[in-house]
Amino acid sequence: MNNAKLSFLGRIFRPLTLNFLFVFSKKKGNEILFAKINVTLPKRLAMIKAALPKGTRDFTPEQLAKRQFIIEKIKNAFERSGFQPVETPAFEKLETLTGKYGNEGDKLIFKILNSGDFLKKVPPAVYEEKNASKMVPYISEKALRYDLTVPLARYVVMHRNEIVFPFKRYQIQPVWRADRPQKGRFREFYQCDADVLGSKSLWQEVEFIQLYNDVFSELKIPVEIRINHRKILNGIIHKFNLEDVKQPFMTALDKLDKIGWDKVVAEWQKSGISAQTAFKLREIFSISPDKMPEHLEPLLRDIPEGMEGVEELKTVLSRVSPLSHAELVPDLSLARGLDYYTGTIMEVRAKSVQMGSLGGGGRYDNLTEIFGVKDISGAGISFGLDRILLVMEEMKLFEGLRGFEPQVMFVNFGDKEAAYSWKAVKKLRETGISAELYPDAVKLKKQLQYAAKRNIPFVVMAGEDEMKAQKFTLKNMQEGSQTQLDFEEMRKIIGTGKN
Amino acid sequence: MNNAKLSFLGRIFRPLTLNFLFVFSKKKGNEILFAKINVTLPKRLAMIKAALPKGTRDFTPEQLAKRQFIIEKIKNAFERSGFQPVETPAFEKLETLTGKYGNEGDKLIFKILNSGDFLKKVPPAVYEEKNASKMVPYISEKALRYDLTVPLARYVVMHRNEIVFPFKRYQIQPVWRADRPQKGRFREFYQCDADVLGSKSLWQEVEFIQLYNDVFSELKIPVEIRINHRKILNGIIHKFNLEDVKQPFMTALDKLDKIGWDKVVAEWQKSGISAQTAFKLREIFSISPDKMPEHLEPLLRDIPEGMEGVEELKTVLSRVSPLSHAELVPDLSLARGLDYYTGTIMEVRAKSVQMGSLGGGGRYDNLTEIFGVKDISGAGISFGLDRILLVMEEMKLFEGLRGFEPQVMFVNFGDKEAAYSWKAVKKLRETGISAELYPDAVKLKKQLQYAAKRNIPFVVMAGEDEMKAQKFTLKNMQEGSQTQLDFEEMRKIIGTGKN
Repeated sequence: MNNAKLSFLGRIFRPLTLNFLFVFSKKKGNEILFAKINVTLPKRLAMIKAALPKGTRDFTPEQLAKRQFIIEKIKNAFERSGFQPVETPAFEKLETLTGKYGNEGDKLIFKILNSGDFLKKVPPAVYEEKNASKMVPYISEKALRYDLTVPLARYVVMHRNEIVFPFKRYQIQPVWRADRPQKGRFREFYQCDADVLGSKSLWQEVEFIQLYNDVFSELKIPVEIRINHRKILNGIIHKFNLEDVKQPFMTALDKLDKIGWDKVVAEWQKSGISAQTAFKLREIFSISPDKMPEHLEPLLRDIPEGMEGVEELKTVLSRVSPLSHAELVPDLSLARGLDYYTGTIMEVRAKSVQMGSLGGGGRYDNLTEIFGVKDISGAGISFGLDRILLVMEEMKLFEGLRGFEPQVMFVNFGDKEAAYSWKAVKKLRETGISAELYPDAVKLKKQLQYAAKRNIPFVVMAGEDEMKAQKFTLKNMQEGSQTQLDFEEMRKIIGTGKN
Repeated sequence: MNNAKLSFLGRIFRPLTLNFLFVFSKKKGNEILFAKINVTLPKRLAMIKAALPKGTRDFTPEQLAKRQFIIEKIKNAFERSGFQPVETPAFEKLETLTGKYGNEGDKLIFKILNSGDFLKKVPPAVYEEKNASKMVPYISEKALRYDLTVPLARYVVMHRNEIVFPFKRYQIQPVWRADRPQKGRFREFYQCDADVLGSKSLWQEVEFIQLYNDVFSELKIPVEIRINHRKILNGIIHKFNLEDVKQPFMTALDKLDKIGWDKVVAEWQKSGISAQTAFKLREIFSISPDKMPEHLEPLLRDIPEGMEGVEELKTVLSRVSPLSHAELVPDLSLARGLDYYTGTIMEVRAKSVQMGSLGGGGRYDNLTEIFGVKDISGAGISFGLDRILLVMEEMKLFEGLRGFEPQVMFVNFGDKEAAYSWKAVKKLRETGISAELYPDAVKLKKQLQYAAKRNIPFVVMAGEDEMKAQKFTLKNMQEGSQTQLDFEEMRKIIGTGKN
């Protein structure tokens, strides 16, 4: 480490070091003081390196080209279907978010420290107790968006007098969760949601299935859309008197894909379901997709909620088919988190690549109730951007994707030549061609290397000869060929070479 | 307030109420306990309303249409000029941000509370002291992005081995500041930055001035780009031995527009500049734009840094002109915050509307030095999205802007008719037309009102007659006219009516 770096570190860490001295000098134990500093400083020294908070990512131009390709397809499909974009702030009031995602979810919400003297509002008795979770409401009033659904509910309630219902909105923005980062799981990630609020019509379900079909068709990812109905599941729970063990019953079922039938049945029995019932349930849930939902009718005949589910699912299936691209598969074992959905539920998976769900959604009846506004039924779906990207990379679907490199670079041979080239650069841009002038009159080789590394397809060289002749030497970087042309000829070739 | 709402509030506030009971029951003072609850609960009750944190905004589809219009123009201009997009996470490590924006800036950084038991790492002695700013580093390790410049420096240092220099990047993302919200000043707002790193060429300055010209030309906002050079200012400071009062000297000058010459001179004198020098300075700084920078040569002849500034500014001015749209005005009194820029500085203002600066930028030499990497000179500019939008609204430049409403809505007359219409909706979407089916078979009047309120230009009615004839009745919502057409005729008319 050189001197400049050390002096910089000195500047940065002076306040921290003083803190330590101050803190530990009170303790009158010099050995402890030095021990502590020795332990702590190296860790802090490591932090001076330019680094990202864990679980977050920079997106390079190359990665953004892929992400934007996917986002554009989703946006276009949303807009073609009459959905309008909405954006909400990155942070919400803490009260807006807490209590909406269960205990586990609450822990994953990033809270923002109040500005200024944030300890001011902490009552002395609370401070004395030194309990972090009790202190939170006094030192934090804001938190980062955890999903796009609670902000949607808050938005709809706040704007309900200006909104035209049924309200079709889409939202593509990042959310943040203090999850343990893993491969493919980040603390900042984008959600792409479309929801309709204010209509109970089953055409909404049809709309969303169609949207999945259209987007994955355009992305060229073969998918299977699995579909189920929460009222059917409730009917079965009612039929077998499972109300008291509903949660463990559903939780086990939800894991079927991962753990298999034997373990699901074992978990059921552990939660108090008799061996006989568990056996019966396994039989029912193993119903073949093409017999769902019709074959549930005898079972649920005396349970109105269950029959409603069967009827609704039948209606959706009949309206939606045939799909041009996706395969729609009724699946009784599809559960999707209990506390949220009240009607149809669905989930999308890639057929060709192993990669969890690429999206999911369903109907919910009481979203805005948490803000005191009832009777706004809604339905919505979500696209999992990161996973879609991974699938497309695995399937090599990004090959040939154009990045953000300009179409042409002009070599800089010195002031006069650069001025001549600059005029051409400006004129090309006016015609919609992306062009740039290399800023420094360095060696030609270096300039050509720059163009090659950035994948710029054309390079123009204009020196004294070209200036005299009012021409330009155009080099096709892939073929290596060179031609002297006038402006208009050059423009045409570069324009055609575009993608 | 009805019972449902109260029971809901009960659910939400139960944990809070328990907290209070727990905390205050320790004090054995029942009166105090009840008094506290009475005071605190009404305030908390008010919070249950759907509300935004102060200084933040929701963006409705109408507002987003305007914002995206501006952002698209900026993005296109950036990309046409060879800039590539980069995105960085919403939060950075706290150490990455602190110390980069001055003391005042540091206070405005939103800090994120560590997850879990965030009090665990606070040393007992620090906790005892109950000093908020000393406690911060122990309970917060992350903070929200305050601008896009420090993240750029961090990005360039982290990715320097894969980056091709000169590195032309643009970044359009929100930033957050705990500023006191005011009219036009928000706690969350977008920055739109373009920077080049790794070249000292003055062609970069030319590039940025051209970018301002092009974007504001496309947005149809007449603007003036004021330009100055930090080396010229440094030269004058040197000439008059103002090194010791540099900061107050520049701060006063920076306010010239707002407070006028008399007050600037008064402030100068207060900071210790003699009346004679202040008078001389006023004379120099009142130099007419068309005589800048040439007329400074006699004054700065013996000050190399000043002369360098004069030469560089002359070069930029000669290379850039003539501009097709913007007026480029050399302005010696342009200062733009001291601690950052080292070369050319510039600022854009609307000519027709009073509205602070719409953008600004300049050259800086040591951006990445804060992360220990030297000698990466850079230059950049920024666009003020919110102010540009306000100017365009005032100038009525958004008139006729197409929103996100679909081009056509199909009326829902019932199951059979809806199925017939749904097929047409799908086919229209395949041709790129945005179309939707009204989800519920409610009264025609209600459906037409929905279409009118959403500004949907065409409505299709297809009942039994149309189904029999395989036709569609197309209603032009603006003209009120109706025609019966086959699919292809209908598609053509809707497609042509597309903005």
